Amino acid sequence: MKQSKLFTKTRKEAPKDEVAKNAQLLIRAGFINKELAGVYSYLPLGLIVLNKINNIIREEMNAIGGQELFLTTLQDKNIWEKTGRLSDEVVNNWFKTKLKNGGEVPMAFTHEEPITNLMRNHLHSFRDLPVFTYQLQTKFRNEERAKSGIMRGREFLMKDLYSFCRDVEEHNRFYEDAKQAYFKIFKRVGLGEKTYLTFASGGVFSKFSHEFQTLSVAGEDLIYVCDQCHLAVNKEVLTEQPTCPGCGNKDLREEKSIEVGNIFTLGEKFSEPLGLTYINEKGEKQNVFMGSYGIGPGRLMGTIVELFADEKGLVWPEAVTPFKVHLLQIGVSAKVKEKAEALYEDLKQQGVAVLYDDRELRPGEKFADADLLGLPWRIIISEKALEAGLFEVKARTVEKAEVIKEKELVSFLTKK
Amino acid sequence: MKQSKLFTKTRKEAPKDEVAKNAQLLIRAGFINKELAGVYSYLPLGLIVLNKINNIIREEMNAIGGQELFLTTLQDKNIWEKTGRLSDEVVNNWFKTKLKNGGEVPMAFTHEEPITNLMRNHLHSFRDLPVFTYQLQTKFRNEERAKSGIMRGREFLMKDLYSFCRDVEEHNRFYEDAKQAYFKIFKRVGLGEKTYLTFASGGVFSKFSHEFQTLSVAGEDLIYVCDQCHLAVNKEVLTEQPTCPGCGNKDLREEKSIEVGNIFTLGEKFSEPLGLTYINEKGEKQNVFMGSYGIGPGRLMGTIVELFADEKGLVWPEAVTPFKVHLLQIGVSAKVKEKAEALYEDLKQQGVAVLYDDRELRPGEKFADADLLGLPWRIIISEKALEAGLFEVKARTVEKAEVIKEKELVSFLTKK
Repeated sequence: MKQSKLFTKTRKEAPKDEVAKNAQLLIRAGFINKELAGVYSYLPLGLIVLNKINNIIREEMNAIGGQELFLTTLQDKNIWEKTGRLSDEVVNNWFKTKLKNGGEVPMAFTHEEPITNLMRNHLHSFRDLPVFTYQLQTKFRNEERAKSGIMRGREFLMKDLYSFCRDVEEHNRFYEDAKQAYFKIFKRVGLGEKTYLTFASGGVFSKFSHEFQTLSVAGEDLIYVCDQCHLAVNKEVLTEQPTCPGCGNKDLREEKSIEVGNIFTLGEKFSEPLGLTYINEKGEKQNVFMGSYGIGPGRLMGTIVELFADEKGLVWPEAVTPFKVHLLQIGVSAKVKEKAEALYEDLKQQGVAVLYDDRELRPGEKFADADLLGLPWRIIISEKALEAGLFEVKARTVEKAEVIKEKELVSFLTKK
Repeated sequence: MKQSKLFTKTRKEAPKDEVAKNAQLLIRAGFINKELAGVYSYLPLGLIVLNKINNIIREEMNAIGGQELFLTTLQDKNIWEKTGRLSDEVVNNWFKTKLKNGGEVPMAFTHEEPITNLMRNHLHSFRDLPVFTYQLQTKFRNEERAKSGIMRGREFLMKDLYSFCRDVEEHNRFYEDAKQAYFKIFKRVGLGEKTYLTFASGGVFSKFSHEFQTLSVAGEDLIYVCDQCHLAVNKEVLTEQPTCPGCGNKDLREEKSIEVGNIFTLGEKFSEPLGLTYINEKGEKQNVFMGSYGIGPGRLMGTIVELFADEKGLVWPEAVTPFKVHLLQIGVSAKVKEKAEALYEDLKQQGVAVLYDDRELRPGEKFADADLLGLPWRIIISEKALEAGLFEVKARTVEKAEVIKEKELVSFLTKK
């Protein structure tokens, strides 16, 4: 797209009350807008990144048999009463609102209750199981503090998958599939190496649940990492000396980290009180055995910013960048404009996503904006380049530009 | 997809308190689930339809220069105070909630205020205008009654576009573009012929606003239709004898109709109180001139159901159907199964979206389900068909099946 048409402008300063690096940079670059503490709008560039993350998640959820649906924010309080979670004393971060007739309407902070209740219309026999459903839907959580930018919001997007199985064996098989799908997602968005499967507290039906923790100084969690088997333990479950649950290694590193995903064995915790049963092969009524699996796409986006951004601005991995190439037209002569325009069209034709900075600004401003926006590849079209028939192509993550012949430019970028 | 894998089941009866035909059929067919009156979840088949409608809208909004963003539900009450709309006496369908510290947080029933406020960071000069932004985002409206199914919900998806122009002339040019884009959308989803540009009450800055009304007995509006120029007038603006605003014709038909879209000239109604200004060519500060343009994708889906469904069930136009073909395997012999499976793979290879009913059910149940789900084309694979080398292909909207040779089947369907 042409940058002169993009309505968002960069800014030198983020709002004074914004302390998180991810939000500061994303606001300055025009990717998001702060509406309230912990409540952010996504502007065009930010929405492209978010949708790319969403689509990677979708592909991996579909690959393990997930069926997408879309539940609601407004909730029937009766079903939450049945599981004992309606009370503010049990769940301390509810947002609630009221119908005109005065009836209380809670706003979903998660969706175990409505999905379990809904499934009663669709699951009857062992032949109907297993079933895996997921959604990308907004959650509302009334956080006391919201100082981590898009990594912990009061209103935020969540991918939540729910599994419905006959028994713990069937459940365990899917749980492993989900674990592998999560690793694929983190790898694809560029967080693979720094993300650890982490043992956390389990709840009623299992000793542990599993988190996926990405090492970062911006993290709110503390984990103990085993370098021998790429596993970690969350500090919250430690009672004595940190020990690797994989190999028994006691020589673990303490690290700050961001929880980028979690998977839970729920067992019959929700199916029992809500009456989600099926008839097994012997004609007996059984509770459905459930699991839940969460990833926050916005939190992933914030984590990517925290990990890769540098002092000049954002740095996007190729898989989630809003555009692959930032084409900078330096100078306003007809010749430069014509060449930049032609290259822009050529790259688009080849399927390369390009942001073309056709604005009439000083070169220094264009370079600063390009660094702040953080697209992977920058190309400069200037008088000098045209005379030499050579173009400067620079990766966002290196200092030095490569010089490439005009006719080799498109193939250089399509191969990258 | 294989129907044995689809978790949703059809039902013979809709919930007793559901009076709208669209919701009754969509619930029975497993496309949606009722959470509360006016609050519906979208299940896999329903979500495919909704996303197809969303994508048609997106394409047409992008074609007129729209830039997509994603605003929030939770709102800063201060900006709504500035326009005088925070009060429940002014806006009678607010949902509001509270932060933990007690601060009131209204939930967006529309987004003029936040988008206008946000634009103050991005629009400064006449060179920055015009700008057109849109989103597909959930709205919350505290309706007293919610009896129209997905056509009028308390929580529902809305496409809302906002235009920002230098002056009324620039605005009027875009307003015409938007009008044409809306006609294209209604035509593409199959509602073109029955949808009328309708003059409705205008508000402060113009005598009229424009609605798009689709004729339907399920409609809540009354309009007067001019057959000479395919225009209509909403009853709400009539003071005397109905007269066509196009040709002056006084011989108009009264019709019930559904409002499927509306476009408004807002002028300076929001830019003035919120201080959204720009510097014009002469260096003078001016208020930005705005418009807003709404379509409810869920309401469109509900309207499609109301218009096309028959006594047997849903009927989907090709552009929004969840699958093009419903492939019914009748009988369970190895030969029938093998042939059905092969045809399923073949059609998928050719890019035809197929729902393959591979379930072990009686033929009557399969036929009834196929009618209820309403996919455009039904193919039957049975022993009889295999012996004859001929397949029955039936359009959902006709009684009689066509008989087609096996080798011509795929090309018949890909050409349709």
